Amino acid sequence: MIRGSSLQQRAAPSDAESVLMSASQETILQFGQLQSSVDVAFWAELGNLKLDKMRLSEDPQQITGAHYAKLPSILNELLLDSSGPLVDMTRCGVPGELRNVNTLERFKALQEQRGALLQEAAGQIWQGIYSGAAEADPSLLSRLLLISYADLKLFRFYYWFAFPAIKPPQPIMVRAVQPLQQALGMELSEGVAESCNEWLGTGGRPLFWLMSVSDDNSASSGKHVVLAYMDHSNLQSNPGLLLRNALLMAAVRWRVGHLDVACLRLRRGKVDATASLLLSVSLPAIPEGWGKEAAPAAIGWEPNARGKTGPRVADLGPTMDPRRLASAAVDLNLRLMRWRAAPALDTAKLAATKCLLLGAGTLGCAVARVLLGWGVRHVTFLDSGRVAFSNPVRQSLYEFADCLDGGKPKAAAAAAALQRIFPDVKSEGVQLCIPMPGHPLSPGEVKQAEEDVRQLEELIEAHDVIFLLMDTRESRWLPTLLGAAKNKLVINAALGFESFLVMRHGAGPDAEDAAASSTAQSGSKGWQRLGCYFCNDVVAPLDSTVDRTLEQQCTVARPGLAGIAGSLAVEMCCGVIQHPQGVRAPAACHDPDASSSSADSALPLGPVPHMVRQLGGGFAQHCLVGQAFKQCIACSGAVVTQYREKGWLFILEALQDPHALEDLTGLTELHSSAAALAMMYSDEDSEDEVERLGPDKTDSGEQGDVKDDWLEL
Amino acid sequence: MIRGSSLQQRAAPSDAESVLMSASQETILQFGQLQSSVDVAFWAELGNLKLDKMRLSEDPQQITGAHYAKLPSILNELLLDSSGPLVDMTRCGVPGELRNVNTLERFKALQEQRGALLQEAAGQIWQGIYSGAAEADPSLLSRLLLISYADLKLFRFYYWFAFPAIKPPQPIMVRAVQPLQQALGMELSEGVAESCNEWLGTGGRPLFWLMSVSDDNSASSGKHVVLAYMDHSNLQSNPGLLLRNALLMAAVRWRVGHLDVACLRLRRGKVDATASLLLSVSLPAIPEGWGKEAAPAAIGWEPNARGKTGPRVADLGPTMDPRRLASAAVDLNLRLMRWRAAPALDTAKLAATKCLLLGAGTLGCAVARVLLGWGVRHVTFLDSGRVAFSNPVRQSLYEFADCLDGGKPKAAAAAAALQRIFPDVKSEGVQLCIPMPGHPLSPGEVKQAEEDVRQLEELIEAHDVIFLLMDTRESRWLPTLLGAAKNKLVINAALGFESFLVMRHGAGPDAEDAAASSTAQSGSKGWQRLGCYFCNDVVAPLDSTVDRTLEQQCTVARPGLAGIAGSLAVEMCCGVIQHPQGVRAPAACHDPDASSSSADSALPLGPVPHMVRQLGGGFAQHCLVGQAFKQCIACSGAVVTQYREKGWLFILEALQDPHALEDLTGLTELHSSAAALAMMYSDEDSEDEVERLGPDKTDSGEQGDVKDDWLEL
Repeated sequence: MIRGSSLQQRAAPSDAESVLMSASQETILQFGQLQSSVDVAFWAELGNLKLDKMRLSEDPQQITGAHYAKLPSILNELLLDSSGPLVDMTRCGVPGELRNVNTLERFKALQEQRGALLQEAAGQIWQGIYSGAAEADPSLLSRLLLISYADLKLFRFYYWFAFPAIKPPQPIMVRAVQPLQQALGMELSEGVAESCNEWLGTGGRPLFWLMSVSDDNSASSGKHVVLAYMDHSNLQSNPGLLLRNALLMAAVRWRVGHLDVACLRLRRGKVDATASLLLSVSLPAIPEGWGKEAAPAAIGWEPNARGKTGPRVADLGPTMDPRRLASAAVDLNLRLMRWRAAPALDTAKLAATKCLLLGAGTLGCAVARVLLGWGVRHVTFLDSGRVAFSNPVRQSLYEFADCLDGGKPKAAAAAAALQRIFPDVKSEGVQLCIPMPGHPLSPGEVKQAEEDVRQLEELIEAHDVIFLLMDTRESRWLPTLLGAAKNKLVINAALGFESFLVMRHGAGPDAEDAAASSTAQSGSKGWQRLGCYFCNDVVAPLDSTVDRTLEQQCTVARPGLAGIAGSLAVEMCCGVIQHPQGVRAPAACHDPDASSSSADSALPLGPVPHMVRQLGGGFAQHCLVGQAFKQCIACSGAVVTQYREKGWLFILEALQDPHALEDLTGLTELHSSAAALAMMYSDEDSEDEVERLGPDKTDSGEQGDVKDDWLEL
Repeated sequence: MIRGSSLQQRAAPSDAESVLMSASQETILQFGQLQSSVDVAFWAELGNLKLDKMRLSEDPQQITGAHYAKLPSILNELLLDSSGPLVDMTRCGVPGELRNVNTLERFKALQEQRGALLQEAAGQIWQGIYSGAAEADPSLLSRLLLISYADLKLFRFYYWFAFPAIKPPQPIMVRAVQPLQQALGMELSEGVAESCNEWLGTGGRPLFWLMSVSDDNSASSGKHVVLAYMDHSNLQSNPGLLLRNALLMAAVRWRVGHLDVACLRLRRGKVDATASLLLSVSLPAIPEGWGKEAAPAAIGWEPNARGKTGPRVADLGPTMDPRRLASAAVDLNLRLMRWRAAPALDTAKLAATKCLLLGAGTLGCAVARVLLGWGVRHVTFLDSGRVAFSNPVRQSLYEFADCLDGGKPKAAAAAAALQRIFPDVKSEGVQLCIPMPGHPLSPGEVKQAEEDVRQLEELIEAHDVIFLLMDTRESRWLPTLLGAAKNKLVINAALGFESFLVMRHGAGPDAEDAAASSTAQSGSKGWQRLGCYFCNDVVAPLDSTVDRTLEQQCTVARPGLAGIAGSLAVEMCCGVIQHPQGVRAPAACHDPDASSSSADSALPLGPVPHMVRQLGGGFAQHCLVGQAFKQCIACSGAVVTQYREKGWLFILEALQDPHALEDLTGLTELHSSAAALAMMYSDEDSEDEVERLGPDKTDSGEQGDVKDDWLEL
């Protein structure tokens, strides 16, 4: 509204007085109602705001509603901010407040308080009117209130709108209403419409004065002043929402008994004299001190869809694309973790992590499922086998149907199962047999092995985390080496009958070199690289598959172990991904009961152990740490360097003669000296000697033995 | 063979000499070959013998092969014992030895030793011949050898038969061969056939002498002696297997140069003179000392299906009914456990155990899968919910398709998934909401609740193990009470964000009474009943579902925890089922590293803890023990007695007013005294006081608090 000095004076025809028509009988003025119609996008945005920013907060949020000239009675835009012009020629914005609460119970409590809530919002409008602030800023005259509870689990939104209107002491009465053209005559009304178009088109406010100015500009008392406003109502003789509190303001602030209002309406995007109305109203007298102590009573809660007093429910679940619904639902649990349990959790990082699972058996299936639970969306399986009849009861991605006709290839069947579970996952199955040291190749097999190694190199390069979930020790060698060379996060799991080992490999040897040079510069105690699966071994892997009895070939493990080991492997993986040092994250201290340091508590998922082991019966797990072994046949600098220099030829040599690895890393020499020692101290067990000369173990000395006892999955 | 004193003398026509026809040229005698044809039933039986009895043993097994008159060249019966007559009129049995080895490598090694193996078997035959034992027992003359490797994972059997024949120093030559009737004439041959029928029909041995006896019985030198035997060959002029070593025996033992043999053949089940042969052979002279030091050389390995030297493979996988194949394969892994890992494991007991899973969510799905792995075949799910879009990535029995159109009922969808995984499982889904204390019923709901309680009572009665896998504390009350009243094994699991509790409830209060009376009699230290989920609580459960924020309604738990907790729950369950004391099994000692007692090591799956708990981050689990609380609102004698006396009315009272339970068990009184204590020692935390007055805990005192922190699944 423009008033006083900012009043825009417009040329008006001298016969302006003649436009007012007397009503035979005054009637109560009624306004076009506003119906809320909330777009799905708003609920989606509210869901995101709630999950990511508001979390447990119930603080009020500033929002803006809007309705448009084309559908003036529908509030069909709702924004979670208050930017942009509130009202212009085509859009009528309504600022307001959203109160979104955490539970349905809280929402019910808000409903009980709805009178007070409405009065609070009305108080703000009244404040704008009473103080005169609304004269300069007409957006203060309209306001909305939205209370809601967002059940993001079911995509169901409970809500209730209010558009507060302050009740005047007496009703506002209509004296006359007629089309503007009819009221002002063709020529004058066209001039008014043109002036208004110019005013509004250059950004003028939507509530302003029109004044009739006589040509001679002398008789100020003869001036006819008309309140003009951009009227978005499309009812024949009823004005829109914005005018409601404006007329109260006229009665309160200007204390006029009568008022003429030009309700400017659009046709083809322009103010049109034939569509617009001239409305003449009688305003009530405002008693002295009315609304001084407290805002006058207000009304304004929107009836629900059945026309009753009550909230509405937007149940978006059934209308959403099921795939998107599933995708959103899966995210929900993860994002909810950030409310209380793990505020620093980076769910996007998990979603972007690409995981390569070597082995799609009992452990592979278990790992893939837990990865899905963590929101990981890229899972590639590698396996050379087919689904056997004994698999489905232990391997959670297969069904009976997968076993028929000789069995589907496991890797492809596992990938297809992931898609069935969660269509948005990017999952692939690669049928490939990992070349193994100690399984010599016939001349005819060399070419295929070279191709397999190349494909494995590419797969490891293309993924972030490599899970070793195979059933032999020797099949772990090549991926361990490639993981170290490419500095990938490698997670390793192996099962025994009632024992298991889950471990993460340390960073590659490059990380050690970098750490050593930085330590040399700083003089501080250096970071130490964690060991790999082979760091505790002093012999190269040989073919372990020959001569295995039936129960050694099969997964003779307590069925519960795979679920435990698979879950731990993924928890370890996610802990490292969320750790700021990533693959170089130090091992969690041994004692799980020790009070964690402040640095640990800052980690989104806490500190991550190096190895978790369960031994024998019982139900106890142990966390162990072992550092990288400088003579390791899989992850040491010597091996990685040879691989980088000679590539496939180096690997071929190791496949054909694993002892070449022992020569390369100096283990052969170690064996000789160990044998010599054993002879010198012949009353001691020579195997013990070998163990003592083995890698520097910070924990259990019998670990090397234990691992050799694994019946691997 | 009947010889000497036992020689049966039969009337023979005086013109017996005339039956021998001179052959124009002697040819080498050839025998009908025997082909092995092993029935699937034998391999199945061998598989069972291997899994259940032989296990890792490679000791030779006595077997019997047989061929029949109708298919004389096919060894089509193979039995794993040597009972029954070896040879009779219709059946020719061959005794022998099975050497089944544990690995394909061992089988290959056996093949390399096949010369020695054959010689060993031939040595036994030779022993029978050389010693004369075979004259009394002609079954010693034929023998079979079977080497095999049973790949029970793939239902593939590698095998090789040998039918050892000792090579004479020179070939046996045929002098003449003609139908018996032609050789002896109609009358005599019919008489011979009739006599043989009588002899064989009354159980006479299949190798015997026929002697021509002149009517006057005077000229013994004129006697014509014929070797008769039951010939199962159907070749026109070649005798069957049994004769081969018999003729060598004739040459070695009786040192005759010529021998006439009546090859008695059947027609319509009787020895028939026209079908039978009279075979005249020249036997080689046996050098002095031949075969004295060692058995002469033998031949006899059966060629494979392609006619080459080598073993055969019976690949039964593709021919078996897939459902039976799956069923057998699932059993395999379990039965293999008994070879080395858990020899005392009673897999049949596991298969017969009926499990009721209350809750088919994250934990319910995980538990069901591990139960399948253990061979449990009866699983009933109870759940009142439907599959939501967020479920499949964490609840391993559901897929995206289960979420469409509002979601399938969870219990039914879970049961259907188990069937898809393993068709032989008996699985059912019950859609039911467990009535809960603190969730008061409206008058209209009472009837349904009564019906629900009745159905729950029947379900618990009909199952052996009850898993409590729900998402509220109060929903666990009724099944805990019913489990205690019916003395069922109850396993309880609950998840927090990075914590979980898995426990088994102790036996019902009846067990305590029984133990108390037996203790009173014996005067020994009594058995103590383990606690239930509510034994650490000093307040009755109330409605915990109202006013839960979104992340409290959803499963905001680290995704790996359900796999760990679900697996532990099943391992605990199976440990108790295998424990001789069952639900009364004492808790495993706390220290998992303590050396187990000898009693413990006798348990098939080791001792079973009472509770396993993981707390906070880290990866460590703790085993705890807590005894039954005499004032427990769920499992105490007072509560169980009330339930038994008043039934539904007692439950209704508890549902409507949980504090009635506190009054009943004396907790109300406890609260008053606790409050009084708190006032007396006002400088101490009153909540601590309540804790101290709580149940007698042998472990961590803060447990009650911890459990209240659970965000339950």
